[in-house]
Amino acid sequence: MSQLSFEFPDNSVKQFDDGITAEDIAKSISISLGKKAVAGKVDGKLVNNQEPLHKGGKIEIITGDSQDGLSVLRETAAQILKMAIANDFKNIQFGESEADEDGFFVDTDKPETQISVDQLSDLSKSMEKIIKQDLPIKVVELSQADALKLVDGDAYQAELIKENTIDGKVKFYEIGDFKSIAEGAVLASTGKVKIFKLLSVAGAYWQGKSSNPMLQRIYATAFNKQKELDADLAKRKEAHERDHRVIGNELDLFFVDPKVGAGLPYWMPNGATIRRTIERYIVDKEVAHGYQHVYTPVLANLDLYKQSGHWAHYREDMFPPMDMGDGEMLELRPMNCPSHIQIYNHHIRSYRELPLRIAELGMMHRYEKSGALSGLQRVREMTLNDGHTFVALDQIQEEFQRILKLMVEVYNDFDIKDYKFRLSYRDPENTEKYFDDDEMWNKAQKMLKGAMDELGLDYVEAEGEAAFYGPKLDVQTKTALGNEETLSTIQLDFMLPERFDLHYVGEDGKQHRPVMIHRGLVSTMERFVAYLTEIYKGAFPTWLAPHQVKIIPVSQDKHGDYANKINDQLRQLKIRSSVDTRAEKMGYLIRDAQTHKIPYTLVVGDEEVNGNSVSVRRYGEKNTESESLDGFVNEIQKDIASYSRNE
Amino acid sequence: MSQLSFEFPDNSVKQFDDGITAEDIAKSISISLGKKAVAGKVDGKLVNNQEPLHKGGKIEIITGDSQDGLSVLRETAAQILKMAIANDFKNIQFGESEADEDGFFVDTDKPETQISVDQLSDLSKSMEKIIKQDLPIKVVELSQADALKLVDGDAYQAELIKENTIDGKVKFYEIGDFKSIAEGAVLASTGKVKIFKLLSVAGAYWQGKSSNPMLQRIYATAFNKQKELDADLAKRKEAHERDHRVIGNELDLFFVDPKVGAGLPYWMPNGATIRRTIERYIVDKEVAHGYQHVYTPVLANLDLYKQSGHWAHYREDMFPPMDMGDGEMLELRPMNCPSHIQIYNHHIRSYRELPLRIAELGMMHRYEKSGALSGLQRVREMTLNDGHTFVALDQIQEEFQRILKLMVEVYNDFDIKDYKFRLSYRDPENTEKYFDDDEMWNKAQKMLKGAMDELGLDYVEAEGEAAFYGPKLDVQTKTALGNEETLSTIQLDFMLPERFDLHYVGEDGKQHRPVMIHRGLVSTMERFVAYLTEIYKGAFPTWLAPHQVKIIPVSQDKHGDYANKINDQLRQLKIRSSVDTRAEKMGYLIRDAQTHKIPYTLVVGDEEVNGNSVSVRRYGEKNTESESLDGFVNEIQKDIASYSRNE
Repeated sequence: MSQLSFEFPDNSVKQFDDGITAEDIAKSISISLGKKAVAGKVDGKLVNNQEPLHKGGKIEIITGDSQDGLSVLRETAAQILKMAIANDFKNIQFGESEADEDGFFVDTDKPETQISVDQLSDLSKSMEKIIKQDLPIKVVELSQADALKLVDGDAYQAELIKENTIDGKVKFYEIGDFKSIAEGAVLASTGKVKIFKLLSVAGAYWQGKSSNPMLQRIYATAFNKQKELDADLAKRKEAHERDHRVIGNELDLFFVDPKVGAGLPYWMPNGATIRRTIERYIVDKEVAHGYQHVYTPVLANLDLYKQSGHWAHYREDMFPPMDMGDGEMLELRPMNCPSHIQIYNHHIRSYRELPLRIAELGMMHRYEKSGALSGLQRVREMTLNDGHTFVALDQIQEEFQRILKLMVEVYNDFDIKDYKFRLSYRDPENTEKYFDDDEMWNKAQKMLKGAMDELGLDYVEAEGEAAFYGPKLDVQTKTALGNEETLSTIQLDFMLPERFDLHYVGEDGKQHRPVMIHRGLVSTMERFVAYLTEIYKGAFPTWLAPHQVKIIPVSQDKHGDYANKINDQLRQLKIRSSVDTRAEKMGYLIRDAQTHKIPYTLVVGDEEVNGNSVSVRRYGEKNTESESLDGFVNEIQKDIASYSRNE
Repeated sequence: MSQLSFEFPDNSVKQFDDGITAEDIAKSISISLGKKAVAGKVDGKLVNNQEPLHKGGKIEIITGDSQDGLSVLRETAAQILKMAIANDFKNIQFGESEADEDGFFVDTDKPETQISVDQLSDLSKSMEKIIKQDLPIKVVELSQADALKLVDGDAYQAELIKENTIDGKVKFYEIGDFKSIAEGAVLASTGKVKIFKLLSVAGAYWQGKSSNPMLQRIYATAFNKQKELDADLAKRKEAHERDHRVIGNELDLFFVDPKVGAGLPYWMPNGATIRRTIERYIVDKEVAHGYQHVYTPVLANLDLYKQSGHWAHYREDMFPPMDMGDGEMLELRPMNCPSHIQIYNHHIRSYRELPLRIAELGMMHRYEKSGALSGLQRVREMTLNDGHTFVALDQIQEEFQRILKLMVEVYNDFDIKDYKFRLSYRDPENTEKYFDDDEMWNKAQKMLKGAMDELGLDYVEAEGEAAFYGPKLDVQTKTALGNEETLSTIQLDFMLPERFDLHYVGEDGKQHRPVMIHRGLVSTMERFVAYLTEIYKGAFPTWLAPHQVKIIPVSQDKHGDYANKINDQLRQLKIRSSVDTRAEKMGYLIRDAQTHKIPYTLVVGDEEVNGNSVSVRRYGEKNTESESLDGFVNEIQKDIASYSRNE
């Protein structure tokens, strides 16, 4: 019998007989590891614990408590779910299924009514039964022809079979008389899955393409222990409550209708008010800090993006060019930098003008796959708080520090605290991969680091993470769904000034090449509002809240005039106030104002009319407080002027 | 000899012999008319005075002092100019030439250096010589082959010959040994042109397409009398000084680079400041008047514009759709109405919400021919101050009046006075051409007229000028170049609510159809800024001026600190102020501030430092005036808060 050679994570190498299983390898190491093992991982690919191995390689023993172990558990639960669905529903078709660190899902399609959320509890019971029977799960191989016969009438499965055919054969899991295409690894029997939960049902396009039919996706998860599931459900609830798509719907901030355009959000008045407030804030802030704001077109001749290099290196993220019929090809811009270079190049620039700071709320378009789109976070049309500073080489450090200070000032105003700085350098082992100017790189990287240290900011350094054209600083945060994303960025660029042959006239009267700094303080309006919605959980601070004050007269007849008088006074001060004139009970109206997360609810009755006062209920508080009207007006004006910093 | 029958403008009909000329017909009416006649016009087409006529029809005798007479004079002058060019330059090629109410032009191309403005005076002298010789101008016919041989090597002329060939023949004017393709009508001899002026030279694309070679266009004009030319030149000078493209360049407001994108303006910081100020003003104004501002995407699925009818009826003004590769066709929107309908339709609407006012600074794209593009006035990408009000039928008059009042309020703030209201109704003789609902039309037209009368506004009524889908009000103004354009519009629309099946729930609990009102107060940002630049001649009122205050210290060393202190104080108040630190003479710096039309120039020296005062020079005034610093700060704040109304 031939021998296979396996290398373990500690770099030790052992020989085993051909046909050995991962389980036996685990047992050979120790009895306890043999018991804990749920699968193997050979050369990065999960294999079933009982599957005979015929090829050596790097091996890992996967235990149930590891992340991979959880994936195996969930893959098993997914197969049990499929079997339960196949048992309970006639003529059901299966799309893709997947298990990962977030849980698992199974896509289904039915000719008539689809599986609904109401049916999840019955499906859970069916799964319990299959688990109780502790059916062994075997891997069997079918010829492609037999496999296609097996799934006759299920076009999705037929396509998946074709994708999974190797040497004319397809692997299936077999549980009792149920068979399902095998991918990844599963546990030995259904009884090994104990803790699972079916979570929700949602539409999902077949293969993530909006032109394909929409299937029903059942989301679920599985764990080894009940308390792990409980913790996960609590986290999901928290994430759901924070999810900007959920809050966006509840507070009527925005919507996306894939029929009218995937990834193209419509900002409803409430969301638009938040956005406009942020836009004015950031433009004013930048103007005060010496930025010159411009408006530049979203379209340009494709040649511009050929010259910038976007068309060569970034094409798959760009929209298709439009043939204007007279030889002109117009392109929706994927970035604003070439536009700001046009502004720079419109005049001959002098060293006296540097650093020259050009900024814009620049609309851009990026082609994201429809499957990747999500609310305001991942969109196809976005408006970036963009800025480009043109500096002399020896101005980099000072300008970088200025931008950083401005950034931190802005974060404070929005009460943003949970973020990390990351400095990205070029890979010192592979300098040939980068823009070729050692001196510039060394100088620039030193300046960035020096600036961070001087300001006493914490940061991580990432060698080899720099862009081809220069080092950068990123500010990283996390979304409610746990995805890491970049909130701000400062990116040095040695390349575009070359490509566009940028100059300034130096003190010596000669032409010099400037360095470009790309910087975004609050990323795109779309992503930033999504982010703020999540960190505030929809309770926007007063300066940003779409509705700042709701006034409720105790009696419309008796106190309506006083309510209107206050309302007019507040609106004169550009405070977003309104009177609730609905004929509903006081308690309902107050609760409704709280549900809409309005910072201030004012109740006015006899006492208030007589005392020229208001009863103030602040968002999130249980009590109302009596205040003079002047006092309240003073308070809210101060609140607005202080941004989020009091929170 | 056969007889031709001619009908005169007074409807009388006379018979003449075949082969009669327009001149002889004029003489047959009266001797004086015979003398004044310079051409005929048969069935709307100009014919030479001496050209034998072989077809009867409606005839007009064209006299030299009429508009058509001027065109004939200018067409003649254009031929003389061409002959002069052909005499003076070797290897010259000719593009198109044209004569109209504005003057005439001739396009030329030379293989090497082009004709420049410096050569116009020599060309004028050459024309004078040709005029002095009083050469007869004859019309000759050539076969196409002979004609092509004649212009051998001139590809433009060859193409024009092909366009002008009728029955294998092409007409030419013959002046001495010079021949030129004949279009329109000319005078009998070169000596009849006396008063002409070559004006300028500018690039013009062959056939108006930016993908074609650029030719040199010589602009010129001709008149019967010197004083008419003088008046015209004065008007041209005034128009030139008012032309927003000229001022836009002088004040660095914007630029267009056809190579990067025809009709796609770049707003430089100065222009952007003006635009931003207007945008904030109009949004705040609208929000205060109950409009709900939104942001909606510039892209949508083409289906949306199929449903709205734009794709069927407006396609040639739209950009080409983009194929997103997964079955989705995305289209740059030509109008914002369908987007606002999406906002309306996102919720079930109640009668309590009506009138529902949706507004946006909505970016749109329209495919204008490159020849029609002009500065900020005619562009391909524009941002419209757009709004749509959804009303019940019986709310039309009140809402129309509200919009009108708001419009007049806005005009006052911008000091706009020179405009006309035009009410457009359907054609009562052809009601079948319009949206089919007599009652709605009658009611709506009556309400619009009633509203105008009630507000005591002057207006003209234009029957048959309404759109297919409803009556409207337009506000008409004129550009510096004399083109009429629409500044504001209020358009009723019965059709889109049908096409998108819009509803609101009435007080009766039943579904009702709303009427839509499209309205733009200040048109697009592009057109409005162009318009304001022209009416202000670049001297923007303080609230709009990109630079509001320039501070000039008499001595940088001695008074620089004081200048900076004032500057900081003003900038704290968000006043756009700067200190001029250039080492130039005081007189130069003051003149420079005036050239840039800065509303306030402050000069500070010893006296001002000691007295805590400023010397104020207001734009357009010759004297400086001493004021306390507090007094000045007060004055400029009041000036800004009062918009343009003090001017």
